[in-house]
Amino acid sequence: MPPVGAALWRSLRAHQVYGANTDVGKTIVSTVLCNAINQQKSSPAAFLKPVSTGPLDEADDRHIQRYAAGTLTKCLYQFDEPVSPHIAARQKQVTIPRDDDIVASVHKTLSEWAGSGINFALVETAGGVHSPGPNGNSQADLYRPLRLPIVLIADSRLGGISSSISAYESLLLRGYDVHSVLLFRDDYYQNHEYLRTYFQKKSIPLVPLPQPPARPQSNDADSLARDEEAMATYYERVARGTDVGGLLEELTAKNVQRIERLEAMSGRAHSTIWYPFTQHHGMAPKDITVIDSAYDDFFQTYTPETASQKGELRATFDGSASWWTQGLGHGNPNLALSAAYAAGRYGHVMFPGNIHEPALSLAESLLETIGNPRLQKVFYSDNGSTGMEVAIKMGLRAACDRYGWDASQEQISILGLKGSYHGDTIGVMDCSEPSTYNKKVEWYRGRGYWFDFPQVRMSQGTWKIDMPASLQEALGPDQEYSSLNGVFDLEARVASETGQRYKEYIRGTIETLVQQGMKFGSVIMEPVILGAGGMLFCDPLFQRCLADVVRAQPELFSADATPGTGAGSWSGLPIIFDEVFTGLYRLGRRSSASFLGVDADIAVNAKLLTGGLVPLCTTLASNEVFQAFSSPHKSDALLHGHSYTAHAVGCQVAVDSLRTMTQMEQGGSWNKYRQDWQPALEADRTSPEVWSVWSHGLVHELSHAPSVEGLFALGTVLSISLKDTQGGGYTSTAAQGLQQRLVAGGAHFQVHSRVLGNVLYLMASVTSTPSALREIEGVLRAALCGA
Amino acid sequence: MPPVGAALWRSLRAHQVYGANTDVGKTIVSTVLCNAINQQKSSPAAFLKPVSTGPLDEADDRHIQRYAAGTLTKCLYQFDEPVSPHIAARQKQVTIPRDDDIVASVHKTLSEWAGSGINFALVETAGGVHSPGPNGNSQADLYRPLRLPIVLIADSRLGGISSSISAYESLLLRGYDVHSVLLFRDDYYQNHEYLRTYFQKKSIPLVPLPQPPARPQSNDADSLARDEEAMATYYERVARGTDVGGLLEELTAKNVQRIERLEAMSGRAHSTIWYPFTQHHGMAPKDITVIDSAYDDFFQTYTPETASQKGELRATFDGSASWWTQGLGHGNPNLALSAAYAAGRYGHVMFPGNIHEPALSLAESLLETIGNPRLQKVFYSDNGSTGMEVAIKMGLRAACDRYGWDASQEQISILGLKGSYHGDTIGVMDCSEPSTYNKKVEWYRGRGYWFDFPQVRMSQGTWKIDMPASLQEALGPDQEYSSLNGVFDLEARVASETGQRYKEYIRGTIETLVQQGMKFGSVIMEPVILGAGGMLFCDPLFQRCLADVVRAQPELFSADATPGTGAGSWSGLPIIFDEVFTGLYRLGRRSSASFLGVDADIAVNAKLLTGGLVPLCTTLASNEVFQAFSSPHKSDALLHGHSYTAHAVGCQVAVDSLRTMTQMEQGGSWNKYRQDWQPALEADRTSPEVWSVWSHGLVHELSHAPSVEGLFALGTVLSISLKDTQGGGYTSTAAQGLQQRLVAGGAHFQVHSRVLGNVLYLMASVTSTPSALREIEGVLRAALCGA
Repeated sequence: MPPVGAALWRSLRAHQVYGANTDVGKTIVSTVLCNAINQQKSSPAAFLKPVSTGPLDEADDRHIQRYAAGTLTKCLYQFDEPVSPHIAARQKQVTIPRDDDIVASVHKTLSEWAGSGINFALVETAGGVHSPGPNGNSQADLYRPLRLPIVLIADSRLGGISSSISAYESLLLRGYDVHSVLLFRDDYYQNHEYLRTYFQKKSIPLVPLPQPPARPQSNDADSLARDEEAMATYYERVARGTDVGGLLEELTAKNVQRIERLEAMSGRAHSTIWYPFTQHHGMAPKDITVIDSAYDDFFQTYTPETASQKGELRATFDGSASWWTQGLGHGNPNLALSAAYAAGRYGHVMFPGNIHEPALSLAESLLETIGNPRLQKVFYSDNGSTGMEVAIKMGLRAACDRYGWDASQEQISILGLKGSYHGDTIGVMDCSEPSTYNKKVEWYRGRGYWFDFPQVRMSQGTWKIDMPASLQEALGPDQEYSSLNGVFDLEARVASETGQRYKEYIRGTIETLVQQGMKFGSVIMEPVILGAGGMLFCDPLFQRCLADVVRAQPELFSADATPGTGAGSWSGLPIIFDEVFTGLYRLGRRSSASFLGVDADIAVNAKLLTGGLVPLCTTLASNEVFQAFSSPHKSDALLHGHSYTAHAVGCQVAVDSLRTMTQMEQGGSWNKYRQDWQPALEADRTSPEVWSVWSHGLVHELSHAPSVEGLFALGTVLSISLKDTQGGGYTSTAAQGLQQRLVAGGAHFQVHSRVLGNVLYLMASVTSTPSALREIEGVLRAALCGA
Repeated sequence: MPPVGAALWRSLRAHQVYGANTDVGKTIVSTVLCNAINQQKSSPAAFLKPVSTGPLDEADDRHIQRYAAGTLTKCLYQFDEPVSPHIAARQKQVTIPRDDDIVASVHKTLSEWAGSGINFALVETAGGVHSPGPNGNSQADLYRPLRLPIVLIADSRLGGISSSISAYESLLLRGYDVHSVLLFRDDYYQNHEYLRTYFQKKSIPLVPLPQPPARPQSNDADSLARDEEAMATYYERVARGTDVGGLLEELTAKNVQRIERLEAMSGRAHSTIWYPFTQHHGMAPKDITVIDSAYDDFFQTYTPETASQKGELRATFDGSASWWTQGLGHGNPNLALSAAYAAGRYGHVMFPGNIHEPALSLAESLLETIGNPRLQKVFYSDNGSTGMEVAIKMGLRAACDRYGWDASQEQISILGLKGSYHGDTIGVMDCSEPSTYNKKVEWYRGRGYWFDFPQVRMSQGTWKIDMPASLQEALGPDQEYSSLNGVFDLEARVASETGQRYKEYIRGTIETLVQQGMKFGSVIMEPVILGAGGMLFCDPLFQRCLADVVRAQPELFSADATPGTGAGSWSGLPIIFDEVFTGLYRLGRRSSASFLGVDADIAVNAKLLTGGLVPLCTTLASNEVFQAFSSPHKSDALLHGHSYTAHAVGCQVAVDSLRTMTQMEQGGSWNKYRQDWQPALEADRTSPEVWSVWSHGLVHELSHAPSVEGLFALGTVLSISLKDTQGGGYTSTAAQGLQQRLVAGGAHFQVHSRVLGNVLYLMASVTSTPSALREIEGVLRAALCGA
């Protein structure tokens, strides 16, 4: 599906007319509006009925043509049966237009009108807000990408207060802005009075119109003629007696305000916002992208007005999956409803000593989803950084408790990997070696040892494991694999000579460090991919061997260490997996630890946990780690907690995200991707399954590109390392050229991406459409292979 | 208003019948259900119409009596006019029942039925879900405290798909659970087919019923008799041909499931959840409170079934304002809708380099609301702890930058107050002196100097300022004030002898510390009240003097220091105000800094920021602090950021919370409280206004109670220090007895509270009702004064 930009023009005020119900007089109100527009004589009103049902001679655009003469009308799809379009479409022997084609046609029509000097256009829906379109999807969902401002026609009949407010709420749930409400005046039910007050509080103007004449009782020529005359009189009366012109001015003003705000936002943000991870020096307003809204994988970004182009909203692929959080599409109505439900049922309720359904459901389903039998306890916090702070506190306490160390008197360190990144709070910054990210932070004091490690990449058509130059002697020569599955075949590799070398190197290093006086309290790893450190794809065998050595040789860490007791017991050191980025299907699997065949003692999840909606984090721990905080003294407890711990909105959204993702996996939603990544050699197919939404062919092809140093794809992640003559790292600028090419985009949309030094990565959601992904792949091919 | 418990009984399956619109056949469906219930012969069906409109002989309970003979029916309020109840109520010369009376009556009726062996009850609403009740409030809002499971009657007519789904969404937005959907089968429009699929995905059973006979065309006796016969035949036919009994079983099963889940939740939580700030040793499932839902200031907590009592949901006052976050009531439908709107419009969109409307609106309105001209830049993070991490990074960098210190080579410390608390991440833990909270955290290393300080409390009817024992010589004798306004009259007090003593003591202490080699990078304070440290009410003059000394004597900190340049420039040290707890009306004012008359250079807000819904934090900074990170090098930037930085849901909710609270202030919502707190002496009234939602009389009265050491109320906070023979502090148990008394509650509800050592505090929201507060005050009086 080619995505469309949202509908916005300075010259054309386009609105979508939604009815609070069917038969509330949408077309009559549209006629009134068209008449008022035509009366202004600047340009004819334009009326678009994308999908119309009912006999042709009663069709809404005919009505408009008759009673609002001069109006430009257009109907895109007409069905005869006066039923909901999804039924009508079924009953007629026609090809049903796809939803995206309908949306694209509406956008095209409005664009043409905007280009031909039309000032006002109405796009009238059929039935109520949730009446299904031809494919059975709710119109409110179907038209959402356009996010046209809404003219809501409320219901003046008995019960109409309720249906009007519910319709309004359904529109808000989808991020629409309702710009005005119109309805017929009914002095008996007085809905207009109630609703006027209701909408006034929301700064939405409400205009009551006189009741239209009753429908003709019969279809004979006389009755129809009388009806025609009565309607004509009605429209004249409305034109004289109601200030619809004033409403048009208000709508115009709102359109102008919206555009002016969009034009001003980057400047205002520039003066007010202090951006995360951003050097503001030399940053100009033009460097700030204005996001009007978002849907599925796309931002609607505003391109400002210049001498040569009009300001407009363009679809821009969210190529960082909104900083790695996005899973189920922006503006997902199910998640919005989950959030609203929890907000309505609880708000936030304080957590210590209490339990509520979303928190318990999430805890239970998360433990089940992750499937690590060691993990028994769920601790909630707000984000990956705080969740990792919790993990460190847990891990260090467990180690100090077992080994009898007094951490206030001596430094307890962690064992990790170079290039690790666990968050921005100072405690977890200390878990990474000094780097650009942390070394200028005044209170940063790295506390640990970080192993350099072999990295995996596809280069020149082959999967390679590159040993760090300084460790070639210890770890052996670089290795090559015909498929990525081979790299992950750890059960075979762990017994290999390489496995032995890795273990010996790790064991020897730890031994030396401990002899030098270091004390270690935990192992911390991001399984498989070290994200913020530069999308470093660690040889999974190395991580596996690190875990194996630590667990098999506890005596390395304390002379009187004994192996853990029982199946869930930690041995050597508690192993902490930071799956904040890599977990919950980011790499195609529920848990990235499963790639390593290692069950962590402590594991942290966030980002995708809530499907990309609100912050929430869980730190899962083994029962033994939990017990290290148990004592008769409150002061021995894990004295950590945030006010919004386990907030109901986040937990509910997470429950529903997790369920959706698991159902997608079980329902085979990703089978095509899996097939694409199935190894050519039968022998390779025995290893655990590895796949990506990015095509296998693309990775092979780009690996031969002259500027590409290496790349990989795994799950929803594509990472391309570009050759960099300046030495790489976070401050490199090598990838910025490619980033610029992506901004220019493909045939249908722009691509927003993030770079980490000489690495450009793209990240999709688990619901990304293959067509969008293939279009992006085309841009990459053109940029890198010149094809 | 006396709050009610939510409606739940094991023996009685009570459901609320909502219609997707008016005239969808609610009463006919209710009759069908009642017939099916009566057929089971275990107990008669019970039918409650709380509010009925329309001619008496057509009233719904009459219909039920006629066609579902044996059904117990009751109507609480009857209005003749067949219009929405809010209009009917206006037209009839009756006293309109208050909403809370209606809800209480419904609860009472159902309770009686439950007590008299009734198994099934239906509570039928009038019109659609949002049709207004007698006072004009939507029924979905009005009945929300009961949170009865819903039987939704969908609309089978043209347009009915839309109105049914919208009605469903409106119910979800208020946290209702829809347990089943019924509607008439219409083979032309086939709404039941579409909706069956729709609701199946949500695991909600849908039962289509045959179309009822058409309404009689006229009112003559013959027609009515024919109609009566046709209806009777219809009900017989439905009883034979539709498996309503199966639906009843499903409803019964859901009721059982709900209760069993509520019974099991504390046990399951006990085995799965690792609670924040909780010693699990000795904790049993019974110590965990199960929260079914919440509304306004009340949790609906589940009291488990025991031999002597039935399990039930009880209203429990949320006396910690949900860990200090709650501002606008639980389940606030406006905030739920704000959250849903942002979720539908954006989901979360990644923030660096981008801007979206909620983030910009919030930044701009926050700077305006706080009203501190120094603060120009807004940095977003997730919670108070991360926001304070950001603040420290900012403050330390600004100081090191100006004074040319290399923080990697020497320790830069902060200046603060004893008992401060700024969050649980390790970096901000280091900003507090060693205490129970932090000293057992392995990586904690306090980095600062913390002043002891004079505290304010009401004791024996007088406001006292107690000097710490060890500082009496330096600071002078304890002081007394006739009103709290006097304590806050800083413009007078700063020039007093006490002011001079404070300054001299502060200056001398800093001088000594710096001579001893300490370097300071920032001042950090919680203005007025140090929250987690034990609700310590610091003499505001002391905080003012600390700020004044630091700013007036920059040479204390660096030999070559010069005063700041220009109005917004910091001098001496950047001053950081942690207003996470104290800000945004918690103490009755937008900013607690305004009590001190000090404009901070950096200020942090969270908790109330989002009205008590989702985590969000802002760190506001001066332009000069911002500039300290400006350089041509990216690595000099503030490299801090969370994935969900400035998430749209949080920002939008915050925009709306802030607006609501500001409007309440400007609209005089708290004027009665202000009047209550107006000082008796005219002379005292000149000082800045001080008030609380807790009554002035209560504070005076309790100050004489034998077990009370001292207390205070400010804004929404009431804090009572109890005499403690064991020495006080976080591990004290002195307040637990009072806490138990509060759990037992008053006449209408229980009270949930938190204690901090020997301090019991209660915190209201800004929308708490005086009647609820006065009831709690009665419990406190009874407990402490024996009255």
